[in-house]
Amino acid sequence: MARKQGSHSDITGPKVRAAALRLIARHGCAAVSMRQIAAEVGVQAGALYNYTSDKQTLLFDLMRRHMEKLLAAYDETLITGTPTEQLRAFTLFHIRYHLPRRDEVFVSYMELRNLSPENFLVVEGLRRNYEDALEGILKAGEADGSFTLPDRKVTVLSLIAQLTGITNWYRDDGRLTQEQVEDIYCDLVLRTVSAPR
Amino acid sequence: MARKQGSHSDITGPKVRAAALRLIARHGCAAVSMRQIAAEVGVQAGALYNYTSDKQTLLFDLMRRHMEKLLAAYDETLITGTPTEQLRAFTLFHIRYHLPRRDEVFVSYMELRNLSPENFLVVEGLRRNYEDALEGILKAGEADGSFTLPDRKVTVLSLIAQLTGITNWYRDDGRLTQEQVEDIYCDLVLRTVSAPR
Repeated sequence: MARKQGSHSDITGPKVRAAALRLIARHGCAAVSMRQIAAEVGVQAGALYNYTSDKQTLLFDLMRRHMEKLLAAYDETLITGTPTEQLRAFTLFHIRYHLPRRDEVFVSYMELRNLSPENFLVVEGLRRNYEDALEGILKAGEADGSFTLPDRKVTVLSLIAQLTGITNWYRDDGRLTQEQVEDIYCDLVLRTVSAPR
Repeated sequence: MARKQGSHSDITGPKVRAAALRLIARHGCAAVSMRQIAAEVGVQAGALYNYTSDKQTLLFDLMRRHMEKLLAAYDETLITGTPTEQLRAFTLFHIRYHLPRRDEVFVSYMELRNLSPENFLVVEGLRRNYEDALEGILKAGEADGSFTLPDRKVTVLSLIAQLTGITNWYRDDGRLTQEQVEDIYCDLVLRTVSAPR
């Protein structure tokens, strides 16, 4: 016998998170109800509460997972060679990971203000881990004389803002291919860590 | 005789816009009602409709004015000298204008998706004017040989993302003073437009 549509067993984490992400990216967390998320998944609101207790937990889950998956993907990426090669690999990783995940990037930035203080600290900590990875590369480059930086921590934040900004303007049918954009940013990033002539 | 609180004459544009900006920055436009905005101003909801017809008009008004005031402030700023001096002046202007206006920056980015298509085009056009101002400086620097760029338009977008990103992390009581941050970014921006050694 076919399972009833909307039965408890239909509600999987990935389905709920994908629906919540779409709705929150479009309307903002404060404007989205659990009822709307349930409707987007195609279940009754009551069934959703079997999966998650409240919207704060769901939002935190989205943002924490986004950072954890980013860190896991980064760990699986081969970042080797000289500091310059590593910085180039980081740049390509960052662009390639974030460009297909614009909703995640948007929600992660926009909804930080809606996290409870303790959840905010967790997400901030994960974000810090990612920044530390880039900082490690910059530090190695300073140590072996490849990079000269005015301030390492500010350079980290500046590079990440610069790279993540691509998600705001890049279009698949635009003037430049993704490969061209990647080349341009590798160039811009390497300039940033070199003292001007 | 004292005017009645909440009378029509109490409702001024700046008051309404300041209240709307605060609420939208905190909750997102879709979650904020005209009634809440009226309450924040301290008037009845009906009185608010004497000032503005709907939330879309109010949001558009906020975003259009933010860009128009930015462009007007930029026009009043002395951007002279060599392209390098002009780029330095642009950098300082951008940081100093945006840092005290974090709510405006946040709303202008986050609420673009809630503008009607025709209002979006107007705001995009104003944004383009600002980008064009920076592009003019880069073009002058390329023409006289001070700057070497991989792609002028991408460099414009990259620099603006890099500079605006400061509003996400800078704290008055942080490790660095605003002056130190300005110096670091002037350095980073000038590196970006110089070919690496």
